[in-house]
Amino acid sequence: MKTLLVTQADLRKLVHEVGIDALMDQVIEAVEGAFRAFDTSRTELRQRDGFTLRNARTGVLEWMPVMRQGETITIKVVGYNPLNPRRYGVPTIIATNSVYDCETGHLMAVVDGVLATALRTGAASAIASRHLADPDSRVVGLVGCGAQAVTQLHALSRVFSIQRVLAFDVDPVAQRSFPKRVGFLGLDVRAVPLETVEAEADILCTVTSVGVGEGPVLEDGRLRPWLHVNAVGSDLPGKVELPRSLLERSLVCPDFLPQALVEGECQQLRPEQVGPSIIEVVQNPERHRDWRKRSTVFDSTGFSLEDEAVTRVLTELARRHGLGMDVELECLAGDAMDPYDLLLPGQGVQAGEEAPGDSRHKVRVA
Amino acid sequence: MKTLLVTQADLRKLVHEVGIDALMDQVIEAVEGAFRAFDTSRTELRQRDGFTLRNARTGVLEWMPVMRQGETITIKVVGYNPLNPRRYGVPTIIATNSVYDCETGHLMAVVDGVLATALRTGAASAIASRHLADPDSRVVGLVGCGAQAVTQLHALSRVFSIQRVLAFDVDPVAQRSFPKRVGFLGLDVRAVPLETVEAEADILCTVTSVGVGEGPVLEDGRLRPWLHVNAVGSDLPGKVELPRSLLERSLVCPDFLPQALVEGECQQLRPEQVGPSIIEVVQNPERHRDWRKRSTVFDSTGFSLEDEAVTRVLTELARRHGLGMDVELECLAGDAMDPYDLLLPGQGVQAGEEAPGDSRHKVRVA
Repeated sequence: MKTLLVTQADLRKLVHEVGIDALMDQVIEAVEGAFRAFDTSRTELRQRDGFTLRNARTGVLEWMPVMRQGETITIKVVGYNPLNPRRYGVPTIIATNSVYDCETGHLMAVVDGVLATALRTGAASAIASRHLADPDSRVVGLVGCGAQAVTQLHALSRVFSIQRVLAFDVDPVAQRSFPKRVGFLGLDVRAVPLETVEAEADILCTVTSVGVGEGPVLEDGRLRPWLHVNAVGSDLPGKVELPRSLLERSLVCPDFLPQALVEGECQQLRPEQVGPSIIEVVQNPERHRDWRKRSTVFDSTGFSLEDEAVTRVLTELARRHGLGMDVELECLAGDAMDPYDLLLPGQGVQAGEEAPGDSRHKVRVA
Repeated sequence: MKTLLVTQADLRKLVHEVGIDALMDQVIEAVEGAFRAFDTSRTELRQRDGFTLRNARTGVLEWMPVMRQGETITIKVVGYNPLNPRRYGVPTIIATNSVYDCETGHLMAVVDGVLATALRTGAASAIASRHLADPDSRVVGLVGCGAQAVTQLHALSRVFSIQRVLAFDVDPVAQRSFPKRVGFLGLDVRAVPLETVEAEADILCTVTSVGVGEGPVLEDGRLRPWLHVNAVGSDLPGKVELPRSLLERSLVCPDFLPQALVEGECQQLRPEQVGPSIIEVVQNPERHRDWRKRSTVFDSTGFSLEDEAVTRVLTELARRHGLGMDVELECLAGDAMDPYDLLLPGQGVQAGEEAPGDSRHKVRVA
């Protein structure tokens, strides 16, 4: 049994062949499809759990499992360390997504999770904005100009006709270099003071790695009354990006409630102040339509259903384009009852001998 | 940043170069060393958690995480499905072991977990038997003749001078073919009725996939008074292999108490009836020496400290012998703040331009 590896080089070829816009469109489609089809009787979600990394204040390594019953189990293992870019020259978020067969437990595929996470997090905000923001929104604000901001803007650009992008970061280098990173979109992107983002955005994404207890990153007061916020950064207990007053007057839609109550903006609310989940919104689009002209928040902690969807898109595209590498990772060949079969010379059941179990499915490696 | 893959083919070469006995000796050494050095202030263990597979009665997929603070996090993801051998021709236990960097979250290595699990489970029983069994033990009994039985016997053969091996399985094909599977050991191995195993074994390993509620697999009554049992099979709530009366008169040493109370033989005991853990026994060998002439049980549910140790042995040996494959799995190259850098033509910070973050550690891929 082989394991499909979809590596960095494969994703580079894939983007070259498919195009980054078509890829994002497929991820948006797949994530929204997963929200629409979600059914607890067939899909089992787990809240993420993890370890605190050496950088005890904010670094974590977490596992995010989801099972589609009778099909696959997908587990993203994701590290989050805001010191990564400056200290190690690698992204804050490093991840790999693994897919297991529900019948045997076999590892079917391992896919890079860095691009996958950026894509699905952008896609989730685009989906939420499509349902909750004013359809006439033209000005997108970004607070935080790191890796996730790129795909936030890219995904929104696939759903809205954006006229202007206003970007702010507390790190002036990250802020100044942002327009270049999203240059491929051909949009009017300006590095501006935070107050300008707050005053002019129709849709605003908070995408920061603000420390625990150091939020919010926005001030309430000058925000537009129809503002839709995608609050993407909060993902740890005590880490929040939005002022409570904004949350209290808005329809706040969490992605995955049990997680959002622990580590999302919903930490700041009592349960009865929380609105419908993004899944309920997508499954009942008419029910919340009136909110599009009012203040809304998507509390995006990031959850495994999104990872499962993007992983499926990437593995299927890789297969279709002949990309990825098949490796025999697990020692599965030979006699299922002999861990040393094929490892020791002369070991194993020989042709013509009685073999334990049903040999129909057996694979022998020369 | 690269990820080391240690595949089936690598392990075959490794066993060829190192020898299966030397490999088992190193795993025994590493696992015992991990027990001896274990310190909760430096190592964080998690109880396994998981999903029930489609085969709802007994199949599971579980994750078993452990962190050595400031060094690595190791996560084994392991499927257990007793239908695997007959239905799919693959082992009951399928696993992969992954190692993550505690600083960044980077996936450092992925190693087959099928051989690794068999090796470490055998090693754990050998270590427990060395500390708890009569040193003059000469007759080893096996109840259950599947994949794990092979490494139980192999590991015990590295620690005891075995004169006779008595093997029983409810599946006559598995039982009859077992002597051949362990033929490489050059021992006197006999397929015998269960009663003979019970009556004559000095050390006995129960290594079955008995169903939940279907145990025990042994009868009390004719067992030797100095018998040491390695109870390896129980790993699910409700699944037990040993009669309660045996447990009640024995020193029962769990591998990892919180887990053993839920899914090990310790399920059958009140907490005050449970003896010291294997870690306490290894750290204080003199304290329990008198029990070697009396009835003892190692309640081996299998835990992540063992997986961490065997994974370290296999990755270090692979490196030393130039085996394994380095792949760039995660999209980490290029600008840490740009998930599309190196994916899109013309994207990314060019030479001479201001780059976000510290570029010292940056890796560029041509």
